[in-house]
Amino acid sequence: MTADDRIRTVGEQAALARIIARLTPADAAVVGPGDDSAVLAAGGQTAITTDTMFEGGDFRLDWSTFADLGTKCVTTNLTDVAAMGARPTALVIALGVLADTTVEQLEQFADAASAALAKQAPGVGVVGGDLSVSPTTTIAVTALGDLEGRSPVLRSGARPGDAIVVCGELGLAGEGLRLLLEGTPPDDLRRTHPREMQAHLAPIAPVAAGAQLARLGATSMLDVSDGLVLDGFRVARASAVRLDFDRAALDSYDAPLESVLYGGEDHALLATVPADAVERVLSELGSDARVVGSVEAGEPQVTTGGQPLEERGWDPFTR
Amino acid sequence: MTADDRIRTVGEQAALARIIARLTPADAAVVGPGDDSAVLAAGGQTAITTDTMFEGGDFRLDWSTFADLGTKCVTTNLTDVAAMGARPTALVIALGVLADTTVEQLEQFADAASAALAKQAPGVGVVGGDLSVSPTTTIAVTALGDLEGRSPVLRSGARPGDAIVVCGELGLAGEGLRLLLEGTPPDDLRRTHPREMQAHLAPIAPVAAGAQLARLGATSMLDVSDGLVLDGFRVARASAVRLDFDRAALDSYDAPLESVLYGGEDHALLATVPADAVERVLSELGSDARVVGSVEAGEPQVTTGGQPLEERGWDPFTR
Repeated sequence: MTADDRIRTVGEQAALARIIARLTPADAAVVGPGDDSAVLAAGGQTAITTDTMFEGGDFRLDWSTFADLGTKCVTTNLTDVAAMGARPTALVIALGVLADTTVEQLEQFADAASAALAKQAPGVGVVGGDLSVSPTTTIAVTALGDLEGRSPVLRSGARPGDAIVVCGELGLAGEGLRLLLEGTPPDDLRRTHPREMQAHLAPIAPVAAGAQLARLGATSMLDVSDGLVLDGFRVARASAVRLDFDRAALDSYDAPLESVLYGGEDHALLATVPADAVERVLSELGSDARVVGSVEAGEPQVTTGGQPLEERGWDPFTR
Repeated sequence: MTADDRIRTVGEQAALARIIARLTPADAAVVGPGDDSAVLAAGGQTAITTDTMFEGGDFRLDWSTFADLGTKCVTTNLTDVAAMGARPTALVIALGVLADTTVEQLEQFADAASAALAKQAPGVGVVGGDLSVSPTTTIAVTALGDLEGRSPVLRSGARPGDAIVVCGELGLAGEGLRLLLEGTPPDDLRRTHPREMQAHLAPIAPVAAGAQLARLGATSMLDVSDGLVLDGFRVARASAVRLDFDRAALDSYDAPLESVLYGGEDHALLATVPADAVERVLSELGSDARVVGSVEAGEPQVTTGGQPLEERGWDPFTR
């Protein structure tokens, strides 16, 4: 086989075999890919999430490489598991690709997915997969996590007096998208704005912080995917509290305030923690974590310095 | 909202909420849909499988209704879990649909998926989902199962002297596809050939038989999805044995021999069981199960009455 092999000529089975060989095995896998199902070792309660990316609505192949997509699909799913306070254990990935996709592109996807797993969740592997030809490039991922005996951290547990902690970057991914939409060629932007491009095209998130925050007593947590304000409203409503952000803290991020508040796909973790846990959270999580505000009693809303913020954010259906 | 609401106008969130309300909750769900991840109760080892159906390669919207697709995506995934000897516990479903898909179509999908679960795996529910607009209708499902302390039943455990048992129908789905490809309108075929149409478009399989066969000592098992012969070769190779089918048993199915041997998407369970377990298997599984041959020592191949069968079957990439 050569680097120019395409699915059309190689066939699904042969291509899939070559990809699976490049994917990290999961520590938890008792039976890996190749039978009707994979089998994972028994653990505690299982967190499970699924997320699908479609060409057009979720990514553009003139912006994203297959390596970018391999990274991004892993990160978006790992952070949803982490946001429950779980330790990720395994992924399954179903790919739909054009018939003239090269096996090399699929290998780049697999290598990037493996590298993203090694960086964010060592020991986690891809235990199952599916490869089909489709007129629309599609990446469907399901991720599992082990709660290791802890209760899941829901959106509904924030209490007045808690501190709001964000772990990860805010606004960079939104800036990346904004720059791409302005029309500068992606390759130029990768040179001039590498952090924004990585944040949007191939994000890496502090996944292990999810289980750490749970162990440290986080009362609520979610993955910031639709913008800090819109996701803040979700916590505010579910917990029946007001989230008040500190303007100086928001200004400390490396992106304009508009993107920090309303940019999408940050994949940072937004958690609330009891006031007496803040010091330990900051010392254990290091520079990834910042206190960005406090939980207040009152009508469910999101404010900064007490001033209401407009409820809007990232909605792919209104673009 | 009315029956004519479309995703384009209603929006993803509202449409998703209406679908989730129609889906059966899972007995195993500690946290259902609505947070970053769902959470399942702790169990034994977890079987996990994923399968995606794309419009064009896997189904045609001029043949299949959304209700058909709801049934089919549930059955194809449940049988992969069952084929490991596991009891299914939960599904996640990610849908990509055209923007002018009606909410009513999605509700028909959800109702059919719930009915298929109730029929084949009571207590199993949909714990997570994702709804996006895509130019290609896409259904990505991941299913989980609990091995309940048993070892997984692999393809590699068949031993000379075992009996070959098939649980479920053979050939009907292949006949259904053949009839559709001949060009008769699907609505006519639904009247004239209801069993073939159901087997191809909206299959129902003996899912509970997977765990039963495992309890009764099945030495190998798989889900017949690519045709009896092609899947038989998989068991023969993995177990290093010859599978010999009994011609009279194959003739007992309600489809021409060609479809029984080479038709795809049967979703029957093909298991090997020790000779001394056959009587109990047949008495416990009833008329769903038939003994169709025996496992013999020798080079990995598939024969009928000792005569080699050609290794071919269902490969969507060569159509």
